[in-house]
Amino acid sequence: MMRTRPLKVALLGCGVVGSEVTRIMTTHADDLAQRIGAPVELVGIAVRRPDRVREGVPQELITTDATALVKRGDIDVVIEVIGGIEPARSLITTAFEHGAGVVSANKALLAQDGAALHAAAERHGVDLYYEAAVAGAIPLVRPLRESLAGDRVNRVLGIVNGTTNFILDKMDSSGAGYSEALDEATALGYAEADPTADVEGFDAAAKAAILAGIAFHTRVRLDDVHREGMTEVTAADFASAKQMGCTIKLLAICERAADGKSVSARVHPAMIPLTHPLASVREAYNAVFIEADAAGQLMFYGPGAGGAPTASAVLGDLVAVCRNKVAEATGPGESAYTRLPVSAMGEVVTRYHISLDVADKPGVLAQVATVFAEHGVSIDTVRQQGKDGEASLVVVTHRATDAALSATVEALRKLDTVRDVASIMRVEGE
Amino acid sequence: MMRTRPLKVALLGCGVVGSEVTRIMTTHADDLAQRIGAPVELVGIAVRRPDRVREGVPQELITTDATALVKRGDIDVVIEVIGGIEPARSLITTAFEHGAGVVSANKALLAQDGAALHAAAERHGVDLYYEAAVAGAIPLVRPLRESLAGDRVNRVLGIVNGTTNFILDKMDSSGAGYSEALDEATALGYAEADPTADVEGFDAAAKAAILAGIAFHTRVRLDDVHREGMTEVTAADFASAKQMGCTIKLLAICERAADGKSVSARVHPAMIPLTHPLASVREAYNAVFIEADAAGQLMFYGPGAGGAPTASAVLGDLVAVCRNKVAEATGPGESAYTRLPVSAMGEVVTRYHISLDVADKPGVLAQVATVFAEHGVSIDTVRQQGKDGEASLVVVTHRATDAALSATVEALRKLDTVRDVASIMRVEGE
Repeated sequence: MMRTRPLKVALLGCGVVGSEVTRIMTTHADDLAQRIGAPVELVGIAVRRPDRVREGVPQELITTDATALVKRGDIDVVIEVIGGIEPARSLITTAFEHGAGVVSANKALLAQDGAALHAAAERHGVDLYYEAAVAGAIPLVRPLRESLAGDRVNRVLGIVNGTTNFILDKMDSSGAGYSEALDEATALGYAEADPTADVEGFDAAAKAAILAGIAFHTRVRLDDVHREGMTEVTAADFASAKQMGCTIKLLAICERAADGKSVSARVHPAMIPLTHPLASVREAYNAVFIEADAAGQLMFYGPGAGGAPTASAVLGDLVAVCRNKVAEATGPGESAYTRLPVSAMGEVVTRYHISLDVADKPGVLAQVATVFAEHGVSIDTVRQQGKDGEASLVVVTHRATDAALSATVEALRKLDTVRDVASIMRVEGE
Repeated sequence: MMRTRPLKVALLGCGVVGSEVTRIMTTHADDLAQRIGAPVELVGIAVRRPDRVREGVPQELITTDATALVKRGDIDVVIEVIGGIEPARSLITTAFEHGAGVVSANKALLAQDGAALHAAAERHGVDLYYEAAVAGAIPLVRPLRESLAGDRVNRVLGIVNGTTNFILDKMDSSGAGYSEALDEATALGYAEADPTADVEGFDAAAKAAILAGIAFHTRVRLDDVHREGMTEVTAADFASAKQMGCTIKLLAICERAADGKSVSARVHPAMIPLTHPLASVREAYNAVFIEADAAGQLMFYGPGAGGAPTASAVLGDLVAVCRNKVAEATGPGESAYTRLPVSAMGEVVTRYHISLDVADKPGVLAQVATVFAEHGVSIDTVRQQGKDGEASLVVVTHRATDAALSATVEALRKLDTVRDVASIMRVEGE
């Protein structure tokens, strides 16, 4: 049965994603109405630059006064695709105060202020949905929040940034160095002019914070996420990875500790075996593994960014929030009841691949092995290569804490026979 | 805020899945209560054989009178994991009449009577959820029904039966024949004593019907699904597939026609390129590709069957239905507004790989090519191999309708120079 009064939607931001949202809302209006049970009408689009040409976007809906738009009082749903902290946060809060549900694609804001925003939404009895904030079109927020709501998630392991995956994939397939691969990504539009947010892992860290919070029913803020970028990954690292039957990916890893009493979230480059499904995720695609007690291992794969995929996620949320409006209900809100603490990186347990440049003389391996043993880091394999008085040692450890590994490396650097710790990389996905 | 009156749940069936549901509901009661916003209590378990030992299942909850259980009048949610058409259908209908929402894992029933059951649920203002009916723990129903609710799905292509994937994977990796691989699957518990439902494609066809209906917002019944089993696939077919850089999978394929005016659903073995992500789905795993206008290509991968994974999906739905009960709302019901007709198999367009045993003499290829041309089936490649007066021709076609291909094959069989049409297999995923 179709309600006749249309639901009114305000759009904040009309860049690549906003334009696509507008296009689909216009061309698929009948489908959306059928799926929601009520017609849905775009009543205003707030932009900074009203004179910019936006094909297919009705000029009469454009306004520069975003605050006035969300304050109209008759808006049912606000779609926020501006990005960044302010003015997005104030506009969303104002929207809640005026009774509107919100659909947001804003990972930075959700990672920083998710708890406060959820509380505000709940206070005003409205929805806050943000599937588009994590991995574009790939359904992750909804599966974690709803499909796995009766299960116990132990780990989320994924490639959640397309730019860095494109760069690493290029380095892997062509043998290119980081700068060369970054240039290609920039030329093809996969990297922004200032790629910092991507290559330094800020974007992935925001997504990791959001995913960890939902997966473990606790609060994980951006500051809780250990973050290492991928600008130091070299062609030599890829060569080492290949020798181990691995490749290198920038991974977001959210884990419940073995004792179940804490969680951790981190973003860093890591070696993963070529046999792992994440190893074959090419170009700018994203993929996320979820491990749960009952479900086992699930993987979700797809385009992690781009106007149309992100718009798909926004519109899925729009339909959900509109359906809730029609039913005069709200969807599941924040679930943070476990209040599990977030461990510091030092307590995180994983494996390591360490390349050392050492003096090529007898007894070096014994010295190095002693240092590992003294710090309680157990060695899995050692590979020794030498020529012309120089030698390299490649050590792969068993699982150890990050703190123990750091202390080991510090002690190794002090050995006269160790000329350089050429690289340290974690090994995941085994 | 926690409601104190518990939600009452009745469980119908306590086999592998039911026992696991009971175990999780008991051990994770606190988590479920927090996630639902109300405690949830299992108040009765209907079974056929009450004397069977079921570890961890409270004996005092066991009853043989399923009808009396669903008629109690105080049940909030009924979980149906009996399977089959009756008595499951009557029990679900009775549950609706008494105000209970239903969570079902029953693919056969949903594929046959989904429309009537949805209508009954809507009439009584209760929920019908069935994520567990398709591909075990892998979220598919919810992503299609909710995450992609603002998008236009064009194709669903997947491996949705673990038993047949295990058998085909064995044949591929070991060169074994069908019988040998089936025996191994049976010995390892991947195939049932009577494997008909799996190997003849009935199970996959039921899932295809459910997925097609949800994906295209129309009604697709089991009878609408073209179904071919995989018992005729031979080691020779795998050898041919390898020569083409392909492997063979039993696929469920749901497509919107190019003109958008009809849909189709089919289950049959097909060659797919080794580079396609579905080609690397091993053992009893399931994986489903979804192609949508805005989202692009998404893939969902995981364990498609088994007690714990299926229980995970059941419990996710249980949490959703319970949340809706607490909110005094219902989730999205059936969406079949497009009323798109389902095409007969003859109208479906795809590519074919055909092996012919032919006389090894000049002019045969020309004869064969003429037959293809007369039926409007365009040839992509031909490979000719001959020895000792016998020869084989392997023809791979461009896209053509199934009807045109069938007519071509019929005409080929009438040629004196064609001794046998050794195999016909569709080629997908390109």
